Amino acid sequence: MELSWADGSFEGCCFTLLEHIRSPKDLKRLNESQLVDLAAEVREFLVESVSKTGGHFGANLGVVELTLALHKVFDSPRDKIVWDVGHQAYVHKMLTGRMDKFSTLRKFKGLAGFPKRNESPHDAFGVGHASTSISAGLGMAVARDLAGQHYKVVSVIGDGALTGGMAMEALNHAGEVGTDFLVILNDNEMSIAENVGALSQYLTRLRSDPTYSRAKAEIENAMRRVPGIGRTLTRTLERLKDSMRHMFVPGLLFEGFGFKYLGPVDGHDLPSLLKMLEDAKNLRGPVLLHMVTQKGKGYASAEEAPDKWHAWPSSAKKNSPPSYSKVFGDTMMELAEADPRVVAVTPAMVPGSGLTKFRERFPNRIYDVGIAEQHAATFCAGLAAAGRKPVLAIYSTFLQRAYDQVIHDICIQQLPVVIAIDRAGIVGPDGETHQGAFDMAYLRTIPNLTLMMPKDEGELRHMMFTALQQQGPVAVRYPRADGAGANVEEPLHEIPIGKSELLREGDDLCIMAVGPMVGVALQAAERLAQQGLSASIINARYIKPLDKETIIRYAKVMPLMTIEEGALAGGFGSAVAELLMDEGIQTELARKGFPDHFIEHGTRAEVLSEIGLDVDHVVDAATKLCGHKDARQSPSVRAWS
Amino acid sequence: MELSWADGSFEGCCFTLLEHIRSPKDLKRLNESQLVDLAAEVREFLVESVSKTGGHFGANLGVVELTLALHKVFDSPRDKIVWDVGHQAYVHKMLTGRMDKFSTLRKFKGLAGFPKRNESPHDAFGVGHASTSISAGLGMAVARDLAGQHYKVVSVIGDGALTGGMAMEALNHAGEVGTDFLVILNDNEMSIAENVGALSQYLTRLRSDPTYSRAKAEIENAMRRVPGIGRTLTRTLERLKDSMRHMFVPGLLFEGFGFKYLGPVDGHDLPSLLKMLEDAKNLRGPVLLHMVTQKGKGYASAEEAPDKWHAWPSSAKKNSPPSYSKVFGDTMMELAEADPRVVAVTPAMVPGSGLTKFRERFPNRIYDVGIAEQHAATFCAGLAAAGRKPVLAIYSTFLQRAYDQVIHDICIQQLPVVIAIDRAGIVGPDGETHQGAFDMAYLRTIPNLTLMMPKDEGELRHMMFTALQQQGPVAVRYPRADGAGANVEEPLHEIPIGKSELLREGDDLCIMAVGPMVGVALQAAERLAQQGLSASIINARYIKPLDKETIIRYAKVMPLMTIEEGALAGGFGSAVAELLMDEGIQTELARKGFPDHFIEHGTRAEVLSEIGLDVDHVVDAATKLCGHKDARQSPSVRAWS
Repeated sequence: MELSWADGSFEGCCFTLLEHIRSPKDLKRLNESQLVDLAAEVREFLVESVSKTGGHFGANLGVVELTLALHKVFDSPRDKIVWDVGHQAYVHKMLTGRMDKFSTLRKFKGLAGFPKRNESPHDAFGVGHASTSISAGLGMAVARDLAGQHYKVVSVIGDGALTGGMAMEALNHAGEVGTDFLVILNDNEMSIAENVGALSQYLTRLRSDPTYSRAKAEIENAMRRVPGIGRTLTRTLERLKDSMRHMFVPGLLFEGFGFKYLGPVDGHDLPSLLKMLEDAKNLRGPVLLHMVTQKGKGYASAEEAPDKWHAWPSSAKKNSPPSYSKVFGDTMMELAEADPRVVAVTPAMVPGSGLTKFRERFPNRIYDVGIAEQHAATFCAGLAAAGRKPVLAIYSTFLQRAYDQVIHDICIQQLPVVIAIDRAGIVGPDGETHQGAFDMAYLRTIPNLTLMMPKDEGELRHMMFTALQQQGPVAVRYPRADGAGANVEEPLHEIPIGKSELLREGDDLCIMAVGPMVGVALQAAERLAQQGLSASIINARYIKPLDKETIIRYAKVMPLMTIEEGALAGGFGSAVAELLMDEGIQTELARKGFPDHFIEHGTRAEVLSEIGLDVDHVVDAATKLCGHKDARQSPSVRAWS
Repeated sequence: MELSWADGSFEGCCFTLLEHIRSPKDLKRLNESQLVDLAAEVREFLVESVSKTGGHFGANLGVVELTLALHKVFDSPRDKIVWDVGHQAYVHKMLTGRMDKFSTLRKFKGLAGFPKRNESPHDAFGVGHASTSISAGLGMAVARDLAGQHYKVVSVIGDGALTGGMAMEALNHAGEVGTDFLVILNDNEMSIAENVGALSQYLTRLRSDPTYSRAKAEIENAMRRVPGIGRTLTRTLERLKDSMRHMFVPGLLFEGFGFKYLGPVDGHDLPSLLKMLEDAKNLRGPVLLHMVTQKGKGYASAEEAPDKWHAWPSSAKKNSPPSYSKVFGDTMMELAEADPRVVAVTPAMVPGSGLTKFRERFPNRIYDVGIAEQHAATFCAGLAAAGRKPVLAIYSTFLQRAYDQVIHDICIQQLPVVIAIDRAGIVGPDGETHQGAFDMAYLRTIPNLTLMMPKDEGELRHMMFTALQQQGPVAVRYPRADGAGANVEEPLHEIPIGKSELLREGDDLCIMAVGPMVGVALQAAERLAQQGLSASIINARYIKPLDKETIIRYAKVMPLMTIEEGALAGGFGSAVAELLMDEGIQTELARKGFPDHFIEHGTRAEVLSEIGLDVDHVVDAATKLCGHKDARQSPSVRAWS
């Protein structure tokens, strides 16, 4: 196996144990002390590797010992290991035959940053979003029972992901089903940012008080020996005996859900971990093993600032314009300054959404609800119903988690909640689980909702301002990208609802583009001009309501093209197609957007080019569209208008 | 106020107290014993009224005392009362000035069956789906604090709704926020059907063991008096003191979330309830009041079979064909019989989905996961990943709750989960929160998913069979309606994927209809024939993938009409519009479906007629479409094809 990098930077490193691990079988031959050495090698490899490729760093350093122990004690792929969120599965990937691909991690056509069923039989369940592992693992455990098989199922979930409602739903159901199933709670005292909520405080209490379990035994013992105890009390104690057992166990919350609780165990103490896993493996019924780890373990900088080291960007930030997220955060400060009713709500996405400064400035007007998208949306509805102006900062794919709440709690009631949809469109290295592909389709079907996307970071500011002026729900989507260098100092102004913006006037075709695709369209127009084709370029601005009047005007005199960063099925171009059909306008419409398959990882530029959303492809499509127009009987179509 | 029915059936009844209650103010003047009498009158009115109009019956009888007590102790609309699910708000509606409208309950243009903000200022938050009340109430409480106001917020949630993940998310967040906020847990020991899960067992333990709280005091006392206790143990106890306080409180689960726990209290004991609410009102921070009630209280039949009396149909079932739900349930038995891998999963919808018999026949192959849609979907993904063939029985609007799981866990991984979407289309008296309006739009944008709808209950059987033959995810949607009287005995056969069915050949226009709209289209065709217009009628069958070849063939020679029970924005007709534009086919397309607003309650027939989805409207639209065709330069369009 080739462990050195193409550029030779690993030369000199010696991974004497690691280089012999081609599958979990190889690891099983090592003894405890060799495994401890292997852990050190794994850490060294991770630091070297991820610092070059970029990727989730802290989470993986935190689960080195756990991953080794799991593959020592369990028998993957026969036994199923289900990773929650999945960005902590790098070590798992290294140990299951994919180490030689690590230089391609999260790169175009390379190793995925998350477990994927079609990448390895050891990836029992694909993932990218949080809180799914208990549901998926329980499904597998039940399927195993139904098939009369006997393998083990282990779900590994972080404390942050545990606050997600579906994890609670799954715990509740698992407790009822009662089948053999191990859940490992990887308690690193934070989710993506710090952890929030009462559950977190509860875990802290468990962690900080190791006397619980010892005390249990001592007290039960003392009770038995107590002499002067009265008859009534004895009877009461008798009745309470069974309950007592529950009451004195530290993992009471989990026991309440019907789980046997083990722990807490130090997740970096490999010998203890191995023993605990062996114990857990032999227990019947649902078991929760509470393991305490440190994110970034073994790498000083990451240990100190785990939030910062959550994911390591693959290259240092150039001197580029501010990202949309940053402009969003800055604009929120401006808006909150001007209107005391403005509040921010986010499901565990304060830094990711650019709200870190906002939180410093307005600590009492921001609510990080943890990984809890459903609650976040309805919490906003409640805030709006009582007169506040909530802005829900959320990523496009995570908004999928709150879809019913957007419909049922926000839009039916026409409550003025502003949904700021970050990561709309291609997100880059996170890949198919994180692409913001569907929000235009799933939102524009909802009545009462206004949906817009700015052409650049400057327009984002005005759109946020506009959104907050409305009496009903508004969603503003924007990409995970650097801005275009637009003016972000202009005084805020309202953009008329449902009005597009004409940026360039031409005769041969009209390109209506959404969001950053406007920039692509403008560049394409320059190139088309060189070919003698003159394009009208329109910044669509509104996906809903459409600027019907403008679309109809252009559709009557020239062929149309739409460009959007989102699924073609049901998206913006689809809305334009509906309009043209409804109005009986017979023209040509070329729609460019995401094809009907899930889109894998890579840089934004690579992926956009792959799916035809770059200048070259737009120029080609426009040329073809105009060519078609000429080849057909356009006079009759034009005459008809 | 007019308390008698138009038909005079209330004559002779005397609601001597009730007839003077025009608002909560009137109720506040009554003393405790008068309130007890009022409760009896309310019950009598409810039984009389709901037995005539239909509606949710048991839930409302269960909260008579609670509702009276809430309006006595709190000051609505200044104080906010948020009802979870909302079908238990009838008594609330009676007491807030809407009693004279009860003869129109759940009827077309009449009183809604759920709280609605635009119906009364006393309806603080609109609802229809479960588990939202804690999130919404917390939002209001936080908004109150931010505005420096001092009203109270009370959320009333049932034990069934508490298992919904978002309720847990909200509890967790409320515990952290720590503001004044009262949650009343209305524990009637069942959700829509019986309750499930570990949480339910926990509540049972609380209910059945009143010694908990007494024991707490006794044991703490005994501990203090114990003589022979060692130094170590004393120190241990000292450290445990604070924890102990939590451990011996019955509502430990809730205390774990940071709530003060009160109860359990008998929810039908009005004096105790009043006292408890007064206490709760004066406590600071989040408080959970655990109240035990009996669904259907005061009405013998409903008390005995609460499930049956959940909702009272407005008229006795005629001798009509079996409902789609029943045919689904019967088909599931047939399919499960033939293939041992088939299992059923449902989020608290066993009877509603027609699975009661299935559960009797295959008790080990059905999983009712409780109100937990997110978990249900990913649990199915886990089952499928491990070789089972899960069928997720769920209503269209509730599937919105599992949207991310359908995308992220089922479709990205192409897992063979069959989603049986009941209540797709107009649902009748439940109204806007329950209309299955959006599923075609939000599902057809997802790659890898096949989506179909049968023209009748006979075809539903074959579609279920077909769905289970596929290697990837398939959704089959069907309405809340009686079947058309189709043959439901035919041997099951596979329907080719993406193939529509030509039912009638004509020359003047082609109507492509989805689901029960096929029947409407066929009737319309008869009428059109009388007018000299001959229509081709196609049963679309597949929303995704479209039968492109057939659509293109007809589109080239005649105008098209699509009819669907679902939102026009992004739905089936939208997919057809996309196809026509993509193929450059210039023809006319009239799309019929749900307009872009939320659709209120009424019978299916009334509502479908209101929105233009009946035979009359289809005939009109078809006539217009054909007229348009003649009036325009159709030759050039035809020539082009």
